Amino acid sequence: MIIEEVSAHSVMEHCDVLSSYSEEPNCLTRPFASKAMRQANETVAAWMQVAGMTIQHDAIGNLIGRYEAHSAGAKTLLLGSHLDTVRDAGKYDGPLGVMIALACVERLHQRMVRLPFAIEVIGFADEEGLRYHSAYLGSKAVTGTFDLQELHLIDADGIPMAEAIRAFGGNPDPQALQTPRWQRSDLLGYCEVHIEQGSVLEAHDLPVGVVSAIGGQSRINVHFTGQAGHAGTVPMSLRHDALCAAAEFVLAVEALARSLSGLVATVGQVSVQPGASNVIPGQVTLSLDVRHHDDTVREQACRQLAERAHDISLARGILFTWQLLQERGSVPCIPHLTQLLTQAIEEMDYPLHSLPSGAGHDAGVLSELTDIAMLFVRCRGGISHHPAESVTVSDVAVAIQVLERFLQLLSETCTAL
Amino acid sequence: MIIEEVSAHSVMEHCDVLSSYSEEPNCLTRPFASKAMRQANETVAAWMQVAGMTIQHDAIGNLIGRYEAHSAGAKTLLLGSHLDTVRDAGKYDGPLGVMIALACVERLHQRMVRLPFAIEVIGFADEEGLRYHSAYLGSKAVTGTFDLQELHLIDADGIPMAEAIRAFGGNPDPQALQTPRWQRSDLLGYCEVHIEQGSVLEAHDLPVGVVSAIGGQSRINVHFTGQAGHAGTVPMSLRHDALCAAAEFVLAVEALARSLSGLVATVGQVSVQPGASNVIPGQVTLSLDVRHHDDTVREQACRQLAERAHDISLARGILFTWQLLQERGSVPCIPHLTQLLTQAIEEMDYPLHSLPSGAGHDAGVLSELTDIAMLFVRCRGGISHHPAESVTVSDVAVAIQVLERFLQLLSETCTAL
Repeated sequence: MIIEEVSAHSVMEHCDVLSSYSEEPNCLTRPFASKAMRQANETVAAWMQVAGMTIQHDAIGNLIGRYEAHSAGAKTLLLGSHLDTVRDAGKYDGPLGVMIALACVERLHQRMVRLPFAIEVIGFADEEGLRYHSAYLGSKAVTGTFDLQELHLIDADGIPMAEAIRAFGGNPDPQALQTPRWQRSDLLGYCEVHIEQGSVLEAHDLPVGVVSAIGGQSRINVHFTGQAGHAGTVPMSLRHDALCAAAEFVLAVEALARSLSGLVATVGQVSVQPGASNVIPGQVTLSLDVRHHDDTVREQACRQLAERAHDISLARGILFTWQLLQERGSVPCIPHLTQLLTQAIEEMDYPLHSLPSGAGHDAGVLSELTDIAMLFVRCRGGISHHPAESVTVSDVAVAIQVLERFLQLLSETCTAL
Repeated sequence: MIIEEVSAHSVMEHCDVLSSYSEEPNCLTRPFASKAMRQANETVAAWMQVAGMTIQHDAIGNLIGRYEAHSAGAKTLLLGSHLDTVRDAGKYDGPLGVMIALACVERLHQRMVRLPFAIEVIGFADEEGLRYHSAYLGSKAVTGTFDLQELHLIDADGIPMAEAIRAFGGNPDPQALQTPRWQRSDLLGYCEVHIEQGSVLEAHDLPVGVVSAIGGQSRINVHFTGQAGHAGTVPMSLRHDALCAAAEFVLAVEALARSLSGLVATVGQVSVQPGASNVIPGQVTLSLDVRHHDDTVREQACRQLAERAHDISLARGILFTWQLLQERGSVPCIPHLTQLLTQAIEEMDYPLHSLPSGAGHDAGVLSELTDIAMLFVRCRGGISHHPAESVTVSDVAVAIQVLERFLQLLSETCTAL
């Protein structure tokens, strides 16, 4: 493990350096096409060159480092993650995956090893969607699924996205943004390393885990309309309290999710009207977020929750509305790649844990173009999107070792063909 | 009922006229010591004079009309309510009680009847506390319980209360504001007519009801601290969701209040942090308002709810804090006055309904100086503090008849002594 630990320390240092590129003085905030992103891209590009890669910047501003195969005409394996961040971010969500991929390529380069496939390490320009409230701009551009309508989105300073792309040195022409960078037949797949952003691995005391699928998600607004009234004068028996209905619903959501393996369901926002301490709530709006790796389970759960909202409202003489805001299906990780990650972990005598990803990732978008796999790294307390985001150097060393072995195993597969 | 209906129509017209005196163009907003209050006071003073009363304005800006007894040295009965309003108010909360008292005096004057006691009809200058967020300024001044610290309060325009009082023609001298207008021995009591602001009378199909007590109130902030986390990545079994704890508590509040006769308990405000649809709530703050006419019941209920919050938090591995913001005891209406209202209602063959007031009233403050009684008038749907506040002319006619008969019965009591 000594060599991997040297690389792991280097990965940690790289993440530290990148965390200094921020649009805000006292915290890490690195939005799409910002000055901080340019600094990050320039620095990572320099590291990539040291690692034997050639550099490209694509139309949206993704940074791509290419490490050639041992022979021309070989297929390409994609590695990477995103280099943008949320506001007041941690150091590892995104950059860790790019840095671990970079470390593995660097070690190939140091040993002067070429594989039977080329590797492209991508630092995606936008996954979080902080600047334009539209996520995955980077991965959508490389897969040819970029929505041209989004070029007209305006940021908080009134700058349209097309202008931001141009200022960053990209190319907002529709042709450039909607042409996939590769044909499906050119690619072996895409493998992304990412912090878990949850606490499953920590609970199982495991450094890494293999992602089985990127779970599907339903986002719903639930609105209860009861009857406002004076908190002192309306007896309990005459009330139609929208918050009591909402409270019943919140507990129904929790109970259902607890009863269905792998389901997570969350009410994260609550708005109460009129919202005065001496007024019975007349209106309550809740956000509902439901996720599962099996779309059928998720859809069935949503139907059951809508029925519960109906029953609760009926029993209380109040009204409810159910508004589906967004729905995206589950994206499976592809067994023949996942299997190689699994084998690498087992060879190192780590217990294997396969887990679905509840969060969305660039890999989800890449799945439209190629086979995907993901490796999760344990993060402390499941904390993410927060400066307290934390990974250990020894877990990073394990992730490097697993990805390195994955590359070897994939090479053997190619050679065997 | 014909005579009472003529008076009732006059009361309704008076309330309509008063509703035009507002600080806001398209709604009724009449704060303490405002131009709108001056217009209201001037108009009501003119009506009082027509009704045979002499006019006084006291140091805080209360309007007081006095109708003398048939002989000098008699005691005084106080009638009235407040003339200020909340923002975007209805027409009847406050003014109705002043206008019904005025109507009764006017009818005595028309019949040239003097009673064995003087009547003073008070239009209180501030009950709602809209301008300085401190309620009952009017009744506190007449009872000598005015808090001099409040003179330094500043309104939204930066005007200190003392200056507002002076500009209104009052007198912010401590002596003037802290000297009770009467000695206890000078008074027979205070009887206030007010809209119910609830829907109990409507549910019982009754025009009026006798108030048994002005209920006590506890105002509490309850804060739950769980653990925020990613809505997609933290499995249900590892969550410490502050909102789920809060939801259990909201339902516990409702269940307890339903199980204890006369208790009302309300969670009217909810604040969720971080408050994003894809983040598990880490912190929730609730307002809790608990009221009962029996202080022991209310205090016991609060203790039980604090225990429930404790149990819920313990079971969920989260923390809670319980902060008592305000507590005021119940104020009983005095049987010998209440009995006269009761008798008046029974003589008119209306079914009797006695009910506690969940809302606070000037009568609560007046209880520190004299015996109090209150008569509630049915209002449509229990709606109050809203332009849709509504009473019927026939219910107002009943209230006038009851108050008039109350004056007769009280006269007989005085004569009998």
